[in-house]
Amino acid sequence: MHVEIWSDIACPWCYIGKARFEAGLAAFAQRDDVEVVHRSFELDPEAPAAAGIPVLDMLATKYGVSRAQAEAMEARVADAAAGEGLDYRSDRIHGNTFDLHRLLHLGRAHGVQEALLDAFYRANFAEARPLGDPAVLRGIAVGAGLPAEEVARVLADPEAYAQEVRAEEREAAELGATGVPFFVIDRRYGISGGQPAEVFRETLERAHTDGAGKLQAVGEADEAGLCGDDGCAVPGK
Amino acid sequence: MHVEIWSDIACPWCYIGKARFEAGLAAFAQRDDVEVVHRSFELDPEAPAAAGIPVLDMLATKYGVSRAQAEAMEARVADAAAGEGLDYRSDRIHGNTFDLHRLLHLGRAHGVQEALLDAFYRANFAEARPLGDPAVLRGIAVGAGLPAEEVARVLADPEAYAQEVRAEEREAAELGATGVPFFVIDRRYGISGGQPAEVFRETLERAHTDGAGKLQAVGEADEAGLCGDDGCAVPGK
Repeated sequence: MHVEIWSDIACPWCYIGKARFEAGLAAFAQRDDVEVVHRSFELDPEAPAAAGIPVLDMLATKYGVSRAQAEAMEARVADAAAGEGLDYRSDRIHGNTFDLHRLLHLGRAHGVQEALLDAFYRANFAEARPLGDPAVLRGIAVGAGLPAEEVARVLADPEAYAQEVRAEEREAAELGATGVPFFVIDRRYGISGGQPAEVFRETLERAHTDGAGKLQAVGEADEAGLCGDDGCAVPGK
Repeated sequence: MHVEIWSDIACPWCYIGKARFEAGLAAFAQRDDVEVVHRSFELDPEAPAAAGIPVLDMLATKYGVSRAQAEAMEARVADAAAGEGLDYRSDRIHGNTFDLHRLLHLGRAHGVQEALLDAFYRANFAEARPLGDPAVLRGIAVGAGLPAEEVARVLADPEAYAQEVRAEEREAAELGATGVPFFVIDRRYGISGGQPAEVFRETLERAHTDGAGKLQAVGEADEAGLCGDDGCAVPGK
């Protein structure tokens, strides 16, 4: 089975939802047959690239609320994070995540995408590290297992993996995503938001049961060469 | 979009079908949104691991035909390969492919799965190299971009990636595969055999049109935290 998860590193419910999905997956008997890929989504593509601003300032401006009200909003999210055993700091920085997504594509090519995403989440939400600082990014990426010279090359070339990031963002829109996290199972089920773990487990079960042998068959067998138990059939000419 | 291709390195129609699929993909306008993953399938899990036997001998025994008849069968497949610009040798060796599939999983982890599969196909069908020889395997795997020490480690440990290979073989059966190549698009369309390129292009178009926004939505929105254009909604408690 194939699970795609669209998320943004700046998205608290993506951080929390990933933990809930993982709890649901752990309770799913066929978990070893599940392949997960993380896809790109930017909540705020216009966010400043270099320095960023404090999240509490961003929230106060965005919602037109006081600093205390912004803190109260964050406290509710922090409660949800704590419920999953996750640290959550409200003194983190809000900034642009395009470069982080480009690095996650490099991570996918090296088989360390998930380790890198976890490291980004931890750096942002648990440690409030400045992800707009290229030196910090480089350190996290190398720590997750990426070769330093490839990380430097990707960060130096703004077009590296840019097309891949944008293609995945278009794809989320085409699939009907209105926000993130957005979980897609076998391109048949869509789960929006950081749902309870049980929702993920149930949907995995359902997709597993529904999916077996239910593909729509395409093409004429007599035009195709096929190899099976009885050897290779050569199509009629 | 997500395409999975189940195939075996010992399968002539997988070799030919891959070229036809690629021609169909090249003619598909949204080809940059297509992600391809190659999955494991063994046509002959009982085939000898070490040395293997000449393919023509295997065919004569399997079908109870003369050597000349086996050569005539192979000549028809060679014609189809030539139609795709592929070299095809009938003096190749038939052997076990389990270790090759394990290495293809290592290749996936390093982002070079496709390069490695192409190299295996070329070594087997175009060059008739003995893939049962670990030194040959190592050379091909390193040439495709894998670190020599990891290749050696996987070849030395028969359980490395073994579970992954078997899980994908089970999955092919669950999806209704009766042979290979078996192409699955977005877990909704199944294409058996090395169909003409046009079948692949048309099915990609159809899946692209059908797939947009057609996911079945799961879960209650009010139990989920979701971040979108308007910020992050906190579910009611």
